[in-house]
Amino acid sequence: MTQRVDPHVLEKATLPLVAGIDVGGTNIKIGLVDQAGSQPAYTKIATQQALGPHDAARRTAQAVKELRSELGLAQADVSCAGLATPGPMDLERGMLLRPGNLPAWHNSPVQQLFSDAVGLPVTYANDANAAAFGEYWVGGGADVDNMMLVTLGTGIGSGVIVDGRLLVGAHGAGGELGHIVIDCRESAVPNSLGLRGTLEGECGSYGVVRRANEALARQSSSSLLAGDTATGITPLAIAEAAEAGDQLALGIVMDTARLLAAGLASGIHTVDPERVLIGGAMTFGGAGHPLGEQFLATVRRETAARIFESLRDKVEIAFAQLGGDAGFIGAAGLARQEGSQD
Amino acid sequence: MTQRVDPHVLEKATLPLVAGIDVGGTNIKIGLVDQAGSQPAYTKIATQQALGPHDAARRTAQAVKELRSELGLAQADVSCAGLATPGPMDLERGMLLRPGNLPAWHNSPVQQLFSDAVGLPVTYANDANAAAFGEYWVGGGADVDNMMLVTLGTGIGSGVIVDGRLLVGAHGAGGELGHIVIDCRESAVPNSLGLRGTLEGECGSYGVVRRANEALARQSSSSLLAGDTATGITPLAIAEAAEAGDQLALGIVMDTARLLAAGLASGIHTVDPERVLIGGAMTFGGAGHPLGEQFLATVRRETAARIFESLRDKVEIAFAQLGGDAGFIGAAGLARQEGSQD
Repeated sequence: MTQRVDPHVLEKATLPLVAGIDVGGTNIKIGLVDQAGSQPAYTKIATQQALGPHDAARRTAQAVKELRSELGLAQADVSCAGLATPGPMDLERGMLLRPGNLPAWHNSPVQQLFSDAVGLPVTYANDANAAAFGEYWVGGGADVDNMMLVTLGTGIGSGVIVDGRLLVGAHGAGGELGHIVIDCRESAVPNSLGLRGTLEGECGSYGVVRRANEALARQSSSSLLAGDTATGITPLAIAEAAEAGDQLALGIVMDTARLLAAGLASGIHTVDPERVLIGGAMTFGGAGHPLGEQFLATVRRETAARIFESLRDKVEIAFAQLGGDAGFIGAAGLARQEGSQD
Repeated sequence: MTQRVDPHVLEKATLPLVAGIDVGGTNIKIGLVDQAGSQPAYTKIATQQALGPHDAARRTAQAVKELRSELGLAQADVSCAGLATPGPMDLERGMLLRPGNLPAWHNSPVQQLFSDAVGLPVTYANDANAAAFGEYWVGGGADVDNMMLVTLGTGIGSGVIVDGRLLVGAHGAGGELGHIVIDCRESAVPNSLGLRGTLEGECGSYGVVRRANEALARQSSSSLLAGDTATGITPLAIAEAAEAGDQLALGIVMDTARLLAAGLASGIHTVDPERVLIGGAMTFGGAGHPLGEQFLATVRRETAARIFESLRDKVEIAFAQLGGDAGFIGAAGLARQEGSQD
């Protein structure tokens, strides 16, 4: 949905609202979020990354103003804003460094730019961390204090909440579970950053496709071979073939679950959460979908086999609940948490 | 040293003191620690585990009393105590569950037992976590707020400090880096708990010896073969042979560094510390020792190759500084920190 403004949500909202801004390569999601995490107004605008961060900040400010007007609120009813972007970033200086999908934004002081444009104090966070905080605040982790979110997509985003606080880390690189090593062999395949044997290199969409191609090179009986060979095999084609009963494709999906479990076990033994949430486009349909549920069941079983016996009935693994809204909601939540400490 | 009492340290000490108690399979280390972490008095008594925890608590209380008397202090000058034991434990209930090396202590309410015996409020912690907190407080991490300690021995103990606080986790299993998965293959060797491909299974002393035996089975030219075959190859024999220039043994030591680096990379991408400390008996001589320094240099180089480029010059890897004292000092530090929050 491009825009939603809901006066009924506003009626029950606890003011002041907080603006949540989640910058992606394609869109910027912008929401007004109340003190309890409900969202009376939301919109999304095109990032148009080539126009650069100044222009995006100006258009974002305009969108925030319009949402506020549509709700009939005064300027003072929105107290602060949270900004989430992909990394890498220098949180201390509020700088976006060299994000792969925002080349025109390299080395820009986004925290200050957005604060100046929106006219509000801005809290800045990694987008995957913001999503984890959103799930913790009002999503799949709303009833726990310690959780991890792992988002499966082209890459693997993730974030960790410890005792109700985001684990940011000393250099803003906390909760980067996609880059943990699950295969220590020198021969392991490097991921997009050149790091060998990482969780992302095996379970990010490019890892899944690579494993499918390797399997097809070994075995020629799969419906995947009937697909459009010009575009190559896609994660969607693998999921569809697996659903249709193709054994090779199903094997790739379940191998993904097994490899993910190895990474989750490492994360669990490091931060000991109450719940692990799995989200993103690469969850094979996700909740309520037969292949998604089979994927989740395998992740649960394989993770249990890799962790302390005493943790097996204590650490829950479930699907995330907020989908693509988690980032802007979490960004707003982090801004609210930071504001409450001043 | 069995006992040391230092009135000169006491002269500069900030009262009240805190008792630190670190229970191991062989000894119980007991120290009186001041508010700044200095240690005016220390002793150690035999655990005599077969006599059970009641008896040990009674003898510990006696030792604390004697240390206090020798320093000429009143009862009120020791305000609280920190107790560290091996796991697994139920921290919420103050219970030691089923520690491998303390069979007569299974399922005992050690927090209450020691509190009753010593006559002080007792804070209870995992011994590896306590050691990490000790290093953070007055050891190799005294100048940072975010660090990990990895202690290499028969097993691998570890602890994580985030923003000056111990990462305990939701079930007391935070910072168990020894059980992260570095080899996700189904064929990976299980560790002592039956978990496959863990850091401890490869780099704990039993993993090191296993890898040495595997290497010897493939290659017969090593001075290790001249050793006492009745007792089998020991970690010490491997270290000595490596020092004397035995290439197979040196390869085992450097493989240990490489495998450790894979685990450290996972920990670093999860908690993003400023410093990683490496301690324990399996550091091949440690600081100032040629083999130990070569081991550390390899750990540094191999870890750097496995982490974000932006972290390579920011995350320091160094030897721990407190040796076997880290546990009781950290236990005291945790008790002090908990007391200051009441």
